[in-house]
Amino acid sequence: MEGLTKIDDLGHPRVVIVGGGFAGLELAKALRDAPVQVVLIDKQNYHTFQPLLYQIATASLEADSIVSPFRKILGKQDNFYFRLAEVLAVDTAGQVVETTIGKLRYDYLVLATGATSNFFGDQRMQRNAFTLKTVEDAIELRNTVLYNFEQALQLGDEEQLNSLLDFVIVGGGPTGVELAGALSELRQHIFPNDYRELDFKEMDIHLIQSGPVLLKGMSANASQHALESLREFGVQVWLDCRVKSYDGYTVTLSNGEKLITRTLIWAAGVTGAPIAGLSKDCMMPGNRYCVNEFSRVQGYDNIFAIGDIAAMKTEEYPEGHPMLAQPALQQGHLLGMNLARIIAGQKPEPFEYDDKGSMATIGRNHAVADIKIFGKEFHWEGFTAWFAWSFIHVASLISFRNRLMVFLNWTWSYISQDKGRRYIIGKPRPSITEEEAGEKAIV
Amino acid sequence: MEGLTKIDDLGHPRVVIVGGGFAGLELAKALRDAPVQVVLIDKQNYHTFQPLLYQIATASLEADSIVSPFRKILGKQDNFYFRLAEVLAVDTAGQVVETTIGKLRYDYLVLATGATSNFFGDQRMQRNAFTLKTVEDAIELRNTVLYNFEQALQLGDEEQLNSLLDFVIVGGGPTGVELAGALSELRQHIFPNDYRELDFKEMDIHLIQSGPVLLKGMSANASQHALESLREFGVQVWLDCRVKSYDGYTVTLSNGEKLITRTLIWAAGVTGAPIAGLSKDCMMPGNRYCVNEFSRVQGYDNIFAIGDIAAMKTEEYPEGHPMLAQPALQQGHLLGMNLARIIAGQKPEPFEYDDKGSMATIGRNHAVADIKIFGKEFHWEGFTAWFAWSFIHVASLISFRNRLMVFLNWTWSYISQDKGRRYIIGKPRPSITEEEAGEKAIV
Repeated sequence: MEGLTKIDDLGHPRVVIVGGGFAGLELAKALRDAPVQVVLIDKQNYHTFQPLLYQIATASLEADSIVSPFRKILGKQDNFYFRLAEVLAVDTAGQVVETTIGKLRYDYLVLATGATSNFFGDQRMQRNAFTLKTVEDAIELRNTVLYNFEQALQLGDEEQLNSLLDFVIVGGGPTGVELAGALSELRQHIFPNDYRELDFKEMDIHLIQSGPVLLKGMSANASQHALESLREFGVQVWLDCRVKSYDGYTVTLSNGEKLITRTLIWAAGVTGAPIAGLSKDCMMPGNRYCVNEFSRVQGYDNIFAIGDIAAMKTEEYPEGHPMLAQPALQQGHLLGMNLARIIAGQKPEPFEYDDKGSMATIGRNHAVADIKIFGKEFHWEGFTAWFAWSFIHVASLISFRNRLMVFLNWTWSYISQDKGRRYIIGKPRPSITEEEAGEKAIV
Repeated sequence: MEGLTKIDDLGHPRVVIVGGGFAGLELAKALRDAPVQVVLIDKQNYHTFQPLLYQIATASLEADSIVSPFRKILGKQDNFYFRLAEVLAVDTAGQVVETTIGKLRYDYLVLATGATSNFFGDQRMQRNAFTLKTVEDAIELRNTVLYNFEQALQLGDEEQLNSLLDFVIVGGGPTGVELAGALSELRQHIFPNDYRELDFKEMDIHLIQSGPVLLKGMSANASQHALESLREFGVQVWLDCRVKSYDGYTVTLSNGEKLITRTLIWAAGVTGAPIAGLSKDCMMPGNRYCVNEFSRVQGYDNIFAIGDIAAMKTEEYPEGHPMLAQPALQQGHLLGMNLARIIAGQKPEPFEYDDKGSMATIGRNHAVADIKIFGKEFHWEGFTAWFAWSFIHVASLISFRNRLMVFLNWTWSYISQDKGRRYIIGKPRPSITEEEAGEKAIV
């Protein structure tokens, strides 16, 4: 590990950041001028703009438009070092992080590891369901959706056909709603032209939501509008309904109904990914680390947590802030300022969440938005919200190049009503077996 | 296989095309208005613009800019049908193609399966070398190149370091020359900024050519200019030299020299991929099918071969036309016209190759071009050739969207001197083991 030892000579305290999502990346940037050595550790060599993963899965965007290599984003920041590795454990007494590429000393450790899908212990579900947390998840889902239709062309059996053409999405939050909307657009505008031999009346899209409303946490207006729009687009929305089991083929719902699908997408909940070596005392429900208003993990002086993995209890948010990009970005930025203050012997500033509102898109010209501007709330829906959603998402992307590419792709798709990234690069998840497909006839 | 049986009712003769490269795709297009049913079979659901694969491998372009889904290109052509499958054998007596998804009857069969890398029987080389024939090859190479540097950061041992930083390219044709040039650009402009902790004087790029000149088949001027440019860029070019063996680590050359690398790219020759069931009599050296001037495979009435897999012997080309995009496109187009003529009881027209010349790019502002316009030859090199190369490649891409995207990417890269697609999405080939990396110290 010569590379790292070389830079030890600088004599600056070392801040090790685990995870380069919104929180970790923002922190690394905020430390640009601080007298520290910043070491970012991530399993990927790129930052992912997670809110648009569903667009990769539905052939609207290519992965390269929403990811940026860390070395490209921060290559010019002198105090920035990156290591492609996974963290295995923390030795808090020795101030050492154990990783897949060796041990790494730290002066300040920041956990920004985000959240993973929560299957609530259902291992069969975990094995069979698709998730949408990484670029590789999204590419696998895209490949599988397309491969389903290629396979369906060869099938005569009605139930087998439905198992390929029907999709079940579990979870009525933004990811579930946006994915259901995008799939219904594909069904309406794209697939019937690509697969003229299939009858797309056979393609059902189910959205299962455990509670009584979609987009929980948004305004009642937004929830209602989302529900109506999705139903108008032909999505079958099941409210107050849970999935009891899924064996890769049959979905059993809490109301006793059964659905057949080989493609169930799990967007129903997330959980933190705890790191070995930290005391259990600082864990909150949902595997989030309990932090104080300075993002300091309970019981530790020099360990911090930001973003989804952190739960900062406040009066307004007794269970911690929502697991969204905005709190992550704001916590990352403030911690950067605060670490500089702490090192300079100054007092850190407490975190205050500036909730700018939230939004979700449902399809062409359809979105909902609850926006807060100077403390005032605005509710938009339909075209205005959709336009605002598009604008804000383009503006939030990391590099100018990505902004330009996404803008061009969206403009193009809007005008042509096309979603062009319909290729199977890499492997789809194998689904139908030869026996299931039945006899192969000469045709 | 209901899908296919449905369309049998049209009563038109069925043309089955195996392979959607330049030749197969052009043929499918040319049959647009012919009274036939066109069935294209390919292992991928997209066409690949192979001449730019090296740009994916070197992080200049993303895959989506150079591929197009067949269903998107030809979805509006009424007589076009696509099946994602691999052909296993042909039953020429029964007029049936056996595929991985079942059997398929044909009236006319067109083989357009292209060529694969030729390892001349060296199985160890085949196992250890990288190739550059598919998008997935190119992505694997890109991932591995980047992962090499990430790993190199952790190494102290000089030889291990060189095994990761050094690259050996075998074959001095366009692919080898273009890849060597692009790697040298990465070494000069990109990697030193990304990996400040590494010394890029340690990164060697070797290009091994069995004959006395690079770009064999182009003009002496072009060959000489390519050689000089590459040497100027710091590429070590070995002429009249062959690789005797490669075990994944040590390259032994015919002149006795040994090179150390974990990344050897094989661009040294191609061979056709013969299909079981066809007579051996129609095979030529290099596993190409011997065809007459109408692209008809020797000994068969209704089987044709076009593109790299076909060898049409002429006075000027006694071993068949060069295995390039131009002959493939022209053969595909003419065969489309000829099949319509044959079905209408008219005489087909013999093929005549219109050689428009050839070109290769070496790097920023550097390319060589031998262009034929109205029978006159023009030799360009340097900026003019580079500009012509760029223009012709953009114009040759399949869709307007791809043209726009590649044009924007190249303009962007040219101005910013950046190659931005530097992410590891999917798996790199595993290279260095834990034992090889040595003791992991606390740093």
